[in-house]
Amino acid sequence: MTVLVPELVIDQTGVHRDLAIVIDDASGLIDAVMGAAHAPADAIYLRRTALAPGFVNAHSHAFQRDLRGKVERVSKLAPEDSFWTWREAMYAGAGAIDPDRIRDVARRCFSQMRNAGFTAVGEFHYVHHQPDGTPYGNPNVLSEAVCEAAEEVGIRIVLLLTAYERGGFDRPAAEGQRRFCDPSIDVYLERLIALQEWAADRPLVTVGAAPHSVRAVSEGWLTRIAEHCADHDLVLHVHADEQPREIEEALDATGLRPVELIERAGALSAHTTIVHGTWCDEHEIALLAAARASVCACPTTEANLGDGYLPARALLQAGVSVCIGSDSNTIIDPLVEVRELEAIARRSAVRRNVLVREGDDGPTGYVLDAGWSAGARALGLPQPRIETDAPADLIALDLDHEEIAGVADADLAAAIVFAGSSALVTRSWIRGR
Amino acid sequence: MTVLVPELVIDQTGVHRDLAIVIDDASGLIDAVMGAAHAPADAIYLRRTALAPGFVNAHSHAFQRDLRGKVERVSKLAPEDSFWTWREAMYAGAGAIDPDRIRDVARRCFSQMRNAGFTAVGEFHYVHHQPDGTPYGNPNVLSEAVCEAAEEVGIRIVLLLTAYERGGFDRPAAEGQRRFCDPSIDVYLERLIALQEWAADRPLVTVGAAPHSVRAVSEGWLTRIAEHCADHDLVLHVHADEQPREIEEALDATGLRPVELIERAGALSAHTTIVHGTWCDEHEIALLAAARASVCACPTTEANLGDGYLPARALLQAGVSVCIGSDSNTIIDPLVEVRELEAIARRSAVRRNVLVREGDDGPTGYVLDAGWSAGARALGLPQPRIETDAPADLIALDLDHEEIAGVADADLAAAIVFAGSSALVTRSWIRGR
Repeated sequence: MTVLVPELVIDQTGVHRDLAIVIDDASGLIDAVMGAAHAPADAIYLRRTALAPGFVNAHSHAFQRDLRGKVERVSKLAPEDSFWTWREAMYAGAGAIDPDRIRDVARRCFSQMRNAGFTAVGEFHYVHHQPDGTPYGNPNVLSEAVCEAAEEVGIRIVLLLTAYERGGFDRPAAEGQRRFCDPSIDVYLERLIALQEWAADRPLVTVGAAPHSVRAVSEGWLTRIAEHCADHDLVLHVHADEQPREIEEALDATGLRPVELIERAGALSAHTTIVHGTWCDEHEIALLAAARASVCACPTTEANLGDGYLPARALLQAGVSVCIGSDSNTIIDPLVEVRELEAIARRSAVRRNVLVREGDDGPTGYVLDAGWSAGARALGLPQPRIETDAPADLIALDLDHEEIAGVADADLAAAIVFAGSSALVTRSWIRGR
Repeated sequence: MTVLVPELVIDQTGVHRDLAIVIDDASGLIDAVMGAAHAPADAIYLRRTALAPGFVNAHSHAFQRDLRGKVERVSKLAPEDSFWTWREAMYAGAGAIDPDRIRDVARRCFSQMRNAGFTAVGEFHYVHHQPDGTPYGNPNVLSEAVCEAAEEVGIRIVLLLTAYERGGFDRPAAEGQRRFCDPSIDVYLERLIALQEWAADRPLVTVGAAPHSVRAVSEGWLTRIAEHCADHDLVLHVHADEQPREIEEALDATGLRPVELIERAGALSAHTTIVHGTWCDEHEIALLAAARASVCACPTTEANLGDGYLPARALLQAGVSVCIGSDSNTIIDPLVEVRELEAIARRSAVRRNVLVREGDDGPTGYVLDAGWSAGARALGLPQPRIETDAPADLIALDLDHEEIAGVADADLAAAIVFAGSSALVTRSWIRGR
């Protein structure tokens, strides 16, 4: 048993003083939450510290961490830079990956995540094969290397194994995309099953499926993957509605928008997460709500890639669960991501305090839950709570840091969200370690 | 003499290795920049450190730092929260100020600024008198207390003494505004002159004029203040175009938009800075460009207050100098502010690398200059450069910080802008100290 006695506990229920958290070291679960007065003599006192559940990063491409600074100049490829010219630079980065390199960059990336207050990551992993598309001897070697990097760092990972079939509607894979592709849906599902088996006895690793997008995966693949996920109780993540061009292409090819296509393929359920959803229209939001699907917003990446503005207020009003991801990993900071959800909503509505749920007195509860419960739901992980039987995935926040120093308890959660950054995080525990 | 030998120097001209910076301790100026090989034996070697000019924060209301966390809940005053309901909460904070309190909060606020990499601040100071409007025995006591707080912290300050005449067009000051008001323009100008004299022998303090806004100050006051600024070579700062309502009121009362009114009053010149400019239209942007006036964007505050989106691209194309301010001081981080300029431009244009000047290869140079030269220009300070006779206002950045670790020299400035935060800043020197 490890017993932590912080000055404050902050979770979905508010800010609490005088609590002790008892962690069962073997299971990595919280065994009990009790009054600090009952703490044993060997309890660890965390002075001037608030303890909170760790944040969940529902969408990451770890290797993109090493594009930092390389992609912020005008491309020679196109007169107007865009997501699409950025993608060419990203493909060059993907082309340079091998098992050692991906392990190295993933380790550095996940380490920054853990230091920033993320305790779980959904790694949407799409670089699978050798540069010409030939599988490695072990066809999951790159995925396994990423998971092992997470284990080394001690962060919980959901490896979202990406399915990639083609370059676009009626377009084969381009050269830079060959490493991402499997020759058939059966081969992809074999790899997925093999990875599920490999991960079965690894306490920090679980597996999900990730048909890349409606441009990269046909309806037939989507349907087969959705069936597999339903049979194996796996989450399904898919990029959609990040850029207007993707929607135009889907409409041209099929007469449907991306989320409509995903729904027709039978791949929209409570286990589904649409990554981005920046350009979701009203009908797509209604489909998401009806299916109880999630949206993963990646605010800092969407800003960097010039994607547009998430319809955050409409998603809240429709009851769609919205979580966050660090995506391109240019910035890794859960507080910056959740704050930006509300910032976009405020700038767009030209008012304040927009993402307020029924019963809440402000947006703080909603945006924190985007980083906590909505993320865990999207990744199929236990809810991040500070209560008995919840995972002991915790972060320590410095109450003396100048970002929040002197703030009263009643205002502290709001100050952390609106004035704080990952610089507040001094320590973290994952499965109690 | 103090000689600093960092691993790298980053300034407007790029990234340089093997330089030594010689500081004249008496004047606080850079005496020479020479090859590191010529550094004397007692030089201070700053290993794994980049040295850069400090950032200029052109717009701050220091006391608002203590609103953190207090204003992020739905107001009981209005069904729809907005800038205007926030303002009521801010007035309550302003109402509680006295000389000791403002010195205390300013000290904490400026200290965070200095730690975050700002080496100069333009303090737009508008709380002048006792709560009922009666002047203190020394009518500048609150302004002086703010300047003394800056001196204690060791940050350069331009005290922008605010003129406040009325509550709005044809509306007297409301109760919460009485502390801000002077009974006549002559009384205001007397206070301004007294403050100029008080500051004359204080090396870290200079003074500027700040007619609050076209709603709070009449054209007659604007004209008199502009004349005084021209005669005394002072900068003139004025809030304008932050919120649509302010523009509607100006149009209703005068038939002119705020920047048009400022221009008609003779208060738009190369010494003028328009704070915000969020809703500037094409004609106002043309007026700003013709007058060579500056705009001070306050991106994180404008997000928090739900102001809208700065027309950053249009301002660049018109050649208007844009600087940054931390304004409400909820967030204090120069890199976050400058990055957000480009982020807004990208999200709005749905493309990347938008704020690119002729001759630059990307937006990094432009946004860094928003934090450096444009800010200094707006505040009437010497240009922040690492060259002979420039002020030794410098910051040290940690090259091993996980935000930028491993980035090549050629990509480093871009990585600092797009992936960095104030957590990179390990040390600062102002006037060489």
